[in-house]
Amino acid sequence: MAVGSEMLTPFRQDTNSLYLTEQLNEVGINVAFKTVVGDNRQHLTSVARAALERSDLITFIGGLGPTEDDLTRESVAEALGVELKRDHDMVAAMYKRFAERRISMPENNAKQADILKGAEVLRNSRGTAPGQWFQRVRNGKLQIVLLLPGPPHELKAMWERDVAPQLQSVAPPAAIATRVIKTAMLPESAADARTAPIYRKYPDIETTVLAGQGQVEFHLQATAATKAEAEDAIANLSGELEDELGDAVFSTTGESLEEIVGYYLQMRGAKLAVAESCTGGMVAERITSDAGSSRYFVGGAVVYSNELKTLFADIPPLMIEAHGAVSKEVALALAENIREICNANIGLGITGIAGPGGGSEEKPVGLVYIAVTNGRKHEVVERRFPGDRERIRRWASQQGLDMVRRLMM
Amino acid sequence: MAVGSEMLTPFRQDTNSLYLTEQLNEVGINVAFKTVVGDNRQHLTSVARAALERSDLITFIGGLGPTEDDLTRESVAEALGVELKRDHDMVAAMYKRFAERRISMPENNAKQADILKGAEVLRNSRGTAPGQWFQRVRNGKLQIVLLLPGPPHELKAMWERDVAPQLQSVAPPAAIATRVIKTAMLPESAADARTAPIYRKYPDIETTVLAGQGQVEFHLQATAATKAEAEDAIANLSGELEDELGDAVFSTTGESLEEIVGYYLQMRGAKLAVAESCTGGMVAERITSDAGSSRYFVGGAVVYSNELKTLFADIPPLMIEAHGAVSKEVALALAENIREICNANIGLGITGIAGPGGGSEEKPVGLVYIAVTNGRKHEVVERRFPGDRERIRRWASQQGLDMVRRLMM
Repeated sequence: MAVGSEMLTPFRQDTNSLYLTEQLNEVGINVAFKTVVGDNRQHLTSVARAALERSDLITFIGGLGPTEDDLTRESVAEALGVELKRDHDMVAAMYKRFAERRISMPENNAKQADILKGAEVLRNSRGTAPGQWFQRVRNGKLQIVLLLPGPPHELKAMWERDVAPQLQSVAPPAAIATRVIKTAMLPESAADARTAPIYRKYPDIETTVLAGQGQVEFHLQATAATKAEAEDAIANLSGELEDELGDAVFSTTGESLEEIVGYYLQMRGAKLAVAESCTGGMVAERITSDAGSSRYFVGGAVVYSNELKTLFADIPPLMIEAHGAVSKEVALALAENIREICNANIGLGITGIAGPGGGSEEKPVGLVYIAVTNGRKHEVVERRFPGDRERIRRWASQQGLDMVRRLMM
Repeated sequence: MAVGSEMLTPFRQDTNSLYLTEQLNEVGINVAFKTVVGDNRQHLTSVARAALERSDLITFIGGLGPTEDDLTRESVAEALGVELKRDHDMVAAMYKRFAERRISMPENNAKQADILKGAEVLRNSRGTAPGQWFQRVRNGKLQIVLLLPGPPHELKAMWERDVAPQLQSVAPPAAIATRVIKTAMLPESAADARTAPIYRKYPDIETTVLAGQGQVEFHLQATAATKAEAEDAIANLSGELEDELGDAVFSTTGESLEEIVGYYLQMRGAKLAVAESCTGGMVAERITSDAGSSRYFVGGAVVYSNELKTLFADIPPLMIEAHGAVSKEVALALAENIREICNANIGLGITGIAGPGGGSEEKPVGLVYIAVTNGRKHEVVERRFPGDRERIRRWASQQGLDMVRRLMM
C-alpha cells in the first residue's frame, strides 16, 4: 500500500512496490494487491480496512513524516481499532537531535513518535520517521501490519536491517521459484491455444502470458514448501512448454532476443552487418545495447532514402524503379550487399512501410520485407505487421533478429 | 484499476495509470485510488466490489483478452450483479478478421464478445478485445464503470476516440490546466535551484520536476473554477520559467526533442545525415520514430567498428591511430564526411565509450565526443556522461539532437 497524493498525479510512479515485491518473494510471500492512495484520512482508513480484511501481511509505505499530510499512523490505528501512544523517549531523542544541529524542533515533529499500541518500533537509520511492526492473531492466523517510510533509501535500509530477518522467522516456510520462457514471432492467440492445455495441468503454478510485437513470454511462478520443490515443479512445466513451443523459444534464463543473437554470433565466430530502411537503426540500436557487441557487430547503414540505398548498399536504381524500394528484391539485395561491403559473415536487410502515411492498396502500411543471408543460404520474408508506426518498426526489428537467430541454429 | 498478475511481480510496472490520470485530469476528474490486482477471479471481484462502493468512476484496465487468465469481464459482472451477454455480430466479425489473415480463430477468442448487459461497446481499432462503457445511477449519482484494454496503444486509441469525448459531456465543470516545459542538457540540480524561487511563488500550481538523461521537464498543473482561469495561472508561471531557462527550453506543447529537430530541419529545408559509433543507431532510431522523417532525414551509418568508420565515413586509419577512435578529431570527421558523402545539409557524428568495459584512465567510460556541422560552421564537444551503458547512450543521443537543434536556431 503506497501512501502519497503525489503518486496520484500523472508524473509519479510508485517504484517502491517493485523492490518490495522482490523482497517479499525472496521470503516466499506473494503479493496479491497493490494500492495507491492519497494523503486523505477517510480514503486511507477505508483502504486500510479493506486490506485488513483480505491479507495476512499489509505494508503501508509513506505518510509517516511530520507534516499535516502524513496520516498513515492515525488511519491505520482507526482501521485496526487500536490506540496510538506517544513514545516520550523517542520525542526526547528527537529534541536532542535537533538541538545538536542548533535548530529548534517544529512541534508537529513529535507526532512521528505516535506508536500503535503493542507495535514494535523500527529505527530509521537514514531519516527521522521510525517504522512500526504490528502483529496480532486474527481468525486463528497471524496478521502483520508494517508501517514503513516512503523515501526509497530509508525504506531499503530499514527493510534489510530489521524487517527481512524478522519476516523470515515468522513467514510460513514456503519458497517461490520463477522462470520466464521467451518466444519470438509466435501469434499470441496460437501460443495460448497451444500451451493452455499444458499449463492448466499445473494449477499450483501461476502462469502469466505476456505478449507484444513479436514476443510472447510465459512467466511461471511456483510456491512450495522448499525452494527445491518449487524449482522442480517449475522445471516440469517449463520442460513441457518448451517441448510444445520448440524453436520459437529463444530464452528461459532472462536474456533478451538481441542478447541471444549476440551469443549465437559469438559462438559461431560470426560478424553481423545490417542495412535498415523502415526500422531506421532500431536493429542496430538493439544489438548495440549489449556491452561487448563490438565483438560480433560491425555496424551498417541506415538507408532511409533511395539515394543512400544505392550509396551504402549498392542497390541499383533500376532495381528500385522496377520493384519499388519496398520489395523482396531490394530487401535481399540489402542483406547480400551489406554483408559483402562490410566484410561480415551475416547480412540483414529490412525495408517496409511503417506509416502512418506512404501506404497504397498494393503496398499497405505494415508491409515489410526482411532478408538475411550468410553467403551460402538466404531467406527473405514478406510480413504485414499490425499496429502503429512504433509497433510496426518493433515487429520488423524483432523479425529481423529472429531470422538471424534461426539462420545460426 | 490495473488488472494483470504480471504487475504483481518485481518486473512490471503499471504505466497506463499515468496516462489515464493525465487524461482524467484533463476533464477535471481527480484520481483518488489506484489498485493493481492479479488475474484471480476472487481477488478481482473483491476489489471491484470495494471500488464500486467508494468511487463515481472506475476504470478497469486489462484482462480483456481471449485467454483463460482474462477475467475482468466475469469479475466485474459479478461485483455489479449484472449479466454478461455474448454479442454474436462481434463474434462473426472476429471470424472474418481471422479469415482475412488466413488463420483459423481459436475458439476462446469468442469470449472477448461477452458484454455487460446494458453496456455500450467501445470498438478497439488496434486489437481484438473491445472496451465497455457501463453506467448506472447509484445513491442518486451517476456511476460509470469502464472496461479498457491493457496494451497502451489500444488503450490510448480507444480513450481518445470514444471515452474522452463522452466523459467530457458527463464530467463536473471543474477545470484543470496543465503544461509541460521541456529542456535539454540542463543539469538537474541547477535547473531546480534556478526555478524553485519562481514556482514557489505559485503555491496553487502543482509543479513537478522530472529529470533523466539530458532532459529536465517541469510539469505544471493548476485547478480553477474555469478552464480559462486555470490556463491563465499556468501561462503566468510558464512565462516566468521560460524566461529564466532561455534557449534550453525546446518545447512547451508536448513535442519530443526529435520532433522539434524535425520541425527545425523542415523549416530550414535542410536534410540530416548521421554517423554513429557508441550510440549504435539510437539517434537514427529516434529521428525516424516520427512519421514523415524521410522529408528531412536521409539516413547514415552505424560505424561500430573502425573498418566501417573508414568504409562509410572515410575516416583515415591514420587519424584513428593518431588520436584513437574516441576523439574530437574522429567525431568532427564523422560529422563532416557523412554530411558530404550523403549529400546532406547537416552532419552529426558521435563516438564514445558506453561501457561498462573499454574504458581507461585517459579515456574513461562515459567519455563521448559529439560533432555537428552544416558545412560553414561546426561544433564539437567532449562530455563525460554518468550512469550505465543505456544512460550514457541516451545522454549522447540527446546531446547530439540538441546540438542539431541549436545549430539551426
